[in-house]
Amino acid sequence: MSRNILVIGAGKSTAHLLDYFFDKSEEEQLYITIADLNPDNLPEHIRNHKNCNPVKLDITDVNARNICIEKADIVVSMLPARMHLIVAQDCLTFNKNLITASYVSNDLLKLDEEVKKKGLVFMNEIGLDPGIDHMSAMEVIDRIRAKGGKILLFESFTGGLVAPENDNNLWNYKFTWNPRNVVLAGQGGAAKFIQEGTYKYIPYHKLFRRTEFLDIAGYGKFEGYANRDSLKYREAYGLTNALTLYRGTMRRVGFSKAWNMFVQLGMTDDSYQIENTNGMSYREFVNLFLPYSPTDSVELKLRHYLKIDQDDIMWEKLEELDLFSPSKKITIENATPAQCLQTILENSWTLGSNEKDMIVMYHKFGYELNGVKKQIDANMVVLGENKSHTAMSKTVGLPVAIATLQILNKKITKPGVQIPITKEVYEPILNELKKYDIIFNEFEVPYLGYNPDSVAS
Amino acid sequence: MSRNILVIGAGKSTAHLLDYFFDKSEEEQLYITIADLNPDNLPEHIRNHKNCNPVKLDITDVNARNICIEKADIVVSMLPARMHLIVAQDCLTFNKNLITASYVSNDLLKLDEEVKKKGLVFMNEIGLDPGIDHMSAMEVIDRIRAKGGKILLFESFTGGLVAPENDNNLWNYKFTWNPRNVVLAGQGGAAKFIQEGTYKYIPYHKLFRRTEFLDIAGYGKFEGYANRDSLKYREAYGLTNALTLYRGTMRRVGFSKAWNMFVQLGMTDDSYQIENTNGMSYREFVNLFLPYSPTDSVELKLRHYLKIDQDDIMWEKLEELDLFSPSKKITIENATPAQCLQTILENSWTLGSNEKDMIVMYHKFGYELNGVKKQIDANMVVLGENKSHTAMSKTVGLPVAIATLQILNKKITKPGVQIPITKEVYEPILNELKKYDIIFNEFEVPYLGYNPDSVAS
Repeated sequence: MSRNILVIGAGKSTAHLLDYFFDKSEEEQLYITIADLNPDNLPEHIRNHKNCNPVKLDITDVNARNICIEKADIVVSMLPARMHLIVAQDCLTFNKNLITASYVSNDLLKLDEEVKKKGLVFMNEIGLDPGIDHMSAMEVIDRIRAKGGKILLFESFTGGLVAPENDNNLWNYKFTWNPRNVVLAGQGGAAKFIQEGTYKYIPYHKLFRRTEFLDIAGYGKFEGYANRDSLKYREAYGLTNALTLYRGTMRRVGFSKAWNMFVQLGMTDDSYQIENTNGMSYREFVNLFLPYSPTDSVELKLRHYLKIDQDDIMWEKLEELDLFSPSKKITIENATPAQCLQTILENSWTLGSNEKDMIVMYHKFGYELNGVKKQIDANMVVLGENKSHTAMSKTVGLPVAIATLQILNKKITKPGVQIPITKEVYEPILNELKKYDIIFNEFEVPYLGYNPDSVAS
Repeated sequence: MSRNILVIGAGKSTAHLLDYFFDKSEEEQLYITIADLNPDNLPEHIRNHKNCNPVKLDITDVNARNICIEKADIVVSMLPARMHLIVAQDCLTFNKNLITASYVSNDLLKLDEEVKKKGLVFMNEIGLDPGIDHMSAMEVIDRIRAKGGKILLFESFTGGLVAPENDNNLWNYKFTWNPRNVVLAGQGGAAKFIQEGTYKYIPYHKLFRRTEFLDIAGYGKFEGYANRDSLKYREAYGLTNALTLYRGTMRRVGFSKAWNMFVQLGMTDDSYQIENTNGMSYREFVNLFLPYSPTDSVELKLRHYLKIDQDDIMWEKLEELDLFSPSKKITIENATPAQCLQTILENSWTLGSNEKDMIVMYHKFGYELNGVKKQIDANMVVLGENKSHTAMSKTVGLPVAIATLQILNKKITKPGVQIPITKEVYEPILNELKKYDIIFNEFEVPYLGYNPDSVAS
C-alpha cells in the first residue's frame, strides 16, 4: 500500500525535491500530493506523473488544509517560514510528522513538549544553510571528539553565487536567490562572534570591510563576511568551550569592498521611503546621498566622498551598473533606498535563462588532540544544472526529501522539534547526498595559530 | 486675589523659571504651587518664599494629581515628555491652560479639537530647542514676508556647550545636559533635508562627516551636523516653497570628526548588550570592536582600522579620555556599547561644580526681495551663571515662565494645542527675553549663492 507524502508549497527550490520523490515513488510506494496556490505551474512531467496528486490549496483555508494534512502520512512544508506554524499545529492535531527547511521559530519551539508527548518528529533547518551546514559540521566535530580531540575553533561560510562559466561581470555576482535578502544582508544589529575567547562586534557600516579570504582548489579565492550571530548554535553543537566561533557569507574576492560603497552612501537603508522615486533616474538616486554642489558632477562628488582613486576598479563596478545614467529610471513609487538599489542591481545581476548558479560552503575545524593543535578544512561546491535545477534547489531540496523518506521509513525516530545535528540524522542523509555529488572535500591544514597569551588579545 | 500657578516637576531646568515667577509674585499676585516627588530638594529661598506652596506629588497618584490641578489657575508641566499626556487630560477635565517645553506628541495633538472647543490654550515647544528657535525664526521670516520677500533658504542650528572660560579639553565639549542624548544623537534613521530643491539623505555612519562651519563674532568657529528631520516644521513655518531647509546641532570645530571615530567603531550602538561589562577595562572595551591579532596592540589596531595618522590630533582626543587604560574600569553590568561609552565620557566630560555652560543658536534666512537675493544671519549666545542657573535652565525656563504669565494675563488667548509661531505669541515673549540678555544679533550677509541650474544639482 502506497504512502502519501504531502508537499505544501511548490516554489523555486522544489525541483530536486520533487524529482527525488518521484524517482523513488515506485520502489518506495510513494504517492505525492502537491498542494499549492497554483498547481498548474508545476512542470508537466510532475503534474502528469501517475503517482502525483496536484491540489490547489490556499493555506489560509482551514478546512481544505485540514483535509490535506489529515490524509497525509507525512508533511513537507516548503512555504515561506512565517507560514509553517499553522501547518505544524495541524500536524500536531492529526499526528503527522513534519519537515521544513526553515529556521526553528520561537513559536514552533513552544510546541516541542507536545510534539515529544505524541512521539512525532518535527525536523527543521534541513536545507542548505541551515541544513547541510549543520550536518557536515557535526559529522566532523563528532569524529574529532570520538578520537578524543577538543574543538578550539569552528568557522563556517556559505555562499550562493554564479557558476564560473557564467561569472562574467566585475562584481563576480548575480542574484541566484531572493535579491531583497542580498540587499539587506547584515542589517539589524552588530555582527557578534568570538575569537580566541574574546567577544568581537562589528557594526553594519564596517561589516563589509572585515572579511577573510578562503581558497577552494579548482575554484580560486573567495571572501567571507560575518553573519549577525555566530554564536547561534554554540550550545547545540556543544561548542561552549571553543575559543573561536565565526559564521559567515561567501562572496568572490572584491565583492564586499565594492558593496561597502552602497552601505557608506546609505543606499541599503530600508527604514524610510523616498518621495517620487517613480521616474527618478539612477543618477538622481545617487545624488540623493551626496552633498549639494552647484558646480561638481555627481561622479566627482562620489569619488571624493568615498575617496575612490582614479585607477580603482571599484569605480568600473559602479559604472557597470549604469549607476550614473540620467536616462535609466527607477519605476517603483515611494520606494526605500534598498528597494531602489535592488531594482538597479536586478537590471544588471539577473541570472540569464541559460546561466547556472553555484553553491559553496567552507568549514574550518581547529582542535587539540594529544596535546597537538591541528586543523581540518572542509569545503563543498555544487553547480547548477539549468534554470529550474539550480544548485540552490538541489542543496535545499535534496536534504529535505531524503530526511522525509528516512522519517517515513522510521530510520529517524527521535521525537521532538529538532534540527539535524545528531549522528542518527546526519549520517544516512550525508551518505545519500554523496550519490548526488553533494560532497565535502577535507584537508588537514596547519592550525591557524592564534596566540591567546599575547598582549593584544 | 492671587492666582495659583501649578508647576509640576522641579528638575534641572526650573531654576530660572521659578525665579521669574517669584520675582513677579508680588507685582502679579502669584501664588506658586510646586508639585514634585521630592519638594525638599527645592532651594531654600524658593521653598521658604511666602508665595510658595511646595507639595509632594507622585504624578501617578490620580487623586492627588486631580486635587492639585483642580486648584490651579494655570498648569506648567516640566515633567519628562512622556508624562505630559495625563496632565493634559486632567487640564481638559478641569478647564485649565497648560504650558510645556516639550515636543507636541501625536497623542497630545489628538486633544486639539476638544481643547479648542473649551477655549483652552495648550502651549508646547516653548523652551530653547524647540522654543526660542521657533520664535526667533518666525520673527525674522514674518518680517521678511511683510516687506514682500520670499524665503528661499532657512537653516537653523542649536548647541549646548561649555562656556569659553571652562572650555579646556581637546574635544571642546562637556556634558551640560542629558549625556545619553548626546551619545545617541543622530540615531534612528537617515538625516533628511532639502538643498536647492533636492532631497538629501545622510546615513548615521556619515552624519558626523557632513558638517558645515558657522562663525559667531567674539566666539569663533563652530560646526553643525544635520538633525534627523529638517523638514519637520516646513508646513508650520509656511516654507513649503523654500529650496533649502536644514536644521542641525552645533559643536565646536573638530568635535564631529572625532566623534565619528566612536560611530565607526560601533561604540554608540544602543541595540544590544555586552556580557560582563562590569569590571571591563576601557582598553578591553575598545578591543571588542577591533579585529583580533596575536601580536598587534589595541592602539595600532585602532589607528590602522580608522586610518589615523601619527600626527592627527584625533588620537590625543582618544588618549585624553583614557580610552586605552587597562586599569580604568566600566562599573555597570550587561551594558550596551552606548552605555559603556557614556560612562567613559562622563569620567572626562562632567561639568565641574564651578564651571559654566553656554547655549548657541544660529539661523540663516535666504530670501528674494524685488528680484534681489539676500541673506540675514542671526545668532544668539547665552552663558550660564553657575551650577543651578545654567544657560540651559535660562533658555528653557524663561520662555516657559513668560508664556505662562502672558496666558494667565490673557495676552495670549488663541485656543488649541499649539507651538509658539504666531506673532501674538512670539513678539511679547522675545521682547521680555531681551530684558534677560537673551538677544539675537542679526547680520546682512551675501546670499549663499547656490546655483540650481547647474548640471550637478
